[in-house]
Amino acid sequence: MTETWHLMALAALTGIGLAGAGMPAYLTWAKGHGWGQVVREEGPQQHLSKAGTPTMGGLVLILSGLLASFWWPVSSVEMWIFRLVVLSGAALGFVDDISKVLKRRNLGLKARHKLAVQGFVGLLLGIYLVATRQPAGIALPWIGFVGGAWLVMAVTLLVTAGSINAVNLTDGLDGLAAGTSIPALLAMAFICISSGHPELAVGACGLVGACLGFLWFNAYPARVFMGDTGSLSLGAALACMALLSGSEFWLVLVGGVFVIETLSVIIQVVYFKLTGGKRVFRMSPIHHHFELGGLHEVQVTARFTVCGVVLAIVSVLLYCGVL
Amino acid sequence: MTETWHLMALAALTGIGLAGAGMPAYLTWAKGHGWGQVVREEGPQQHLSKAGTPTMGGLVLILSGLLASFWWPVSSVEMWIFRLVVLSGAALGFVDDISKVLKRRNLGLKARHKLAVQGFVGLLLGIYLVATRQPAGIALPWIGFVGGAWLVMAVTLLVTAGSINAVNLTDGLDGLAAGTSIPALLAMAFICISSGHPELAVGACGLVGACLGFLWFNAYPARVFMGDTGSLSLGAALACMALLSGSEFWLVLVGGVFVIETLSVIIQVVYFKLTGGKRVFRMSPIHHHFELGGLHEVQVTARFTVCGVVLAIVSVLLYCGVL
Repeated sequence: MTETWHLMALAALTGIGLAGAGMPAYLTWAKGHGWGQVVREEGPQQHLSKAGTPTMGGLVLILSGLLASFWWPVSSVEMWIFRLVVLSGAALGFVDDISKVLKRRNLGLKARHKLAVQGFVGLLLGIYLVATRQPAGIALPWIGFVGGAWLVMAVTLLVTAGSINAVNLTDGLDGLAAGTSIPALLAMAFICISSGHPELAVGACGLVGACLGFLWFNAYPARVFMGDTGSLSLGAALACMALLSGSEFWLVLVGGVFVIETLSVIIQVVYFKLTGGKRVFRMSPIHHHFELGGLHEVQVTARFTVCGVVLAIVSVLLYCGVL
Repeated sequence: MTETWHLMALAALTGIGLAGAGMPAYLTWAKGHGWGQVVREEGPQQHLSKAGTPTMGGLVLILSGLLASFWWPVSSVEMWIFRLVVLSGAALGFVDDISKVLKRRNLGLKARHKLAVQGFVGLLLGIYLVATRQPAGIALPWIGFVGGAWLVMAVTLLVTAGSINAVNLTDGLDGLAAGTSIPALLAMAFICISSGHPELAVGACGLVGACLGFLWFNAYPARVFMGDTGSLSLGAALACMALLSGSEFWLVLVGGVFVIETLSVIIQVVYFKLTGGKRVFRMSPIHHHFELGGLHEVQVTARFTVCGVVLAIVSVLLYCGVL
């Protein structure tokens, strides 16, 4: 069999090619149907000019990435689980995006409906994990193994919903979600190889390539957005890789940028309610905080991506016991 | 001994850290001394606003990258050659930059003086290669080995001067030279490992990290430029890796973006002279052609970087015989 890294490189190349070639066709189609982004009215003022940019580019991104995963030549249950989980994220995101486009408002599905679907996907993943992990439990670095089927189930639900929503929150500046997903996916690919799941690494590299092809069009000023179709699937991909490879904890570090984006929203909302109207950040998620503080959108994207690369390298070195 | 990739990861991390931490100090100092960029008057109009941005950030970039290379724990002649060649590029670039700053004109050293210094570095490298390659000659993929000490010398001079000037020409948009150097350095790192020169891969990763740390400040709108200090050294690093690992031909493909930038200048100048004033491109180097064609500076940078990643993956796969 060909070496894993050959397949990873081929998957990445295929992802770039498919996403790069498919997007212009999608853009023509989307513009013809008036599928433009509806910008939330309470966001930064300079973002109002983004209204009308075609959204749901994540459709092309995810399909390109998934097609590229077929470089993996062996039948693999976990590869199929990965593909189906990513696809379920894309389907949920698509329903959300399309309802926004059709209603012409930046309000799609209700939050509790979205969470219910994510919980359902998490439940199925959890059942698989409880059935196949011998013994069932969660491995924590420096602490050790904590057993329990219910723990596995709870962690699976938390990681799935957490990761999906965290990447979704991060998707607010041109190139940000795709740019920060690339180092995170690569680090998880590495962890998956080290833990004996090379097929997931090939799947991740397909998505990395698709993100790069997507950035061709999504770089500032974006000509297309990924929409929830893209961000929910990328979050689902990261969660799925972490869960199948038993490295749930590491996802917190690998996806540190997404974690901080999520925490910034939680802190802002909680503080706002507790103080009856005061704010910690100029605006949440935190990328808007820096933007309103005077950094250009592109600078925030570049710096968050560099942070993502640092977290990816540190995670991998810690995982392998080098640091 | 620790595995090579550990050292590569550590070098990259160190490069990011040193460049990221060193740049603010340099910026304070440079602004205090009025070391701003002098923009060439015949460039795109929108670039005139870049005047006054501190330049010579390449000084911090290169020193950070070189310091990071000291993760390589073994005494190595080729690592020292690499460091000294990169440093000679930095020294030449520094003299060029500083003379521009002091004269307050976008004209530094004379072209023939720069070429003479590059030729001198190439000559020293060539002497080392002729003395150590047994037999002396050039390996061409699909064609085979072509022998001859004079051929080695000629190719060394051509590759050294070509690579240095090609990266220099590419350095014209915020984030472009650093962004496109990253995939090229990583591909050359891979080729160096495959050909038995792991120390050069560690050196390259130090520079990759330093480029990332530099991009923190160089992302659009740039707060610092690398100047010739940076671009000449990055070109020297790529040339040195290709020559020491005997993969001169591959550099043409790995550095395809730099090659195309250079060809665009040559084509423009030759066509202009032959036709008595007609142009092929709206402006050369070709990144300005796309910019004047309506793409935003950031889009050109993103797209050229994606092209660089594609070239890097294709080169590595071809080099290993997978494609």
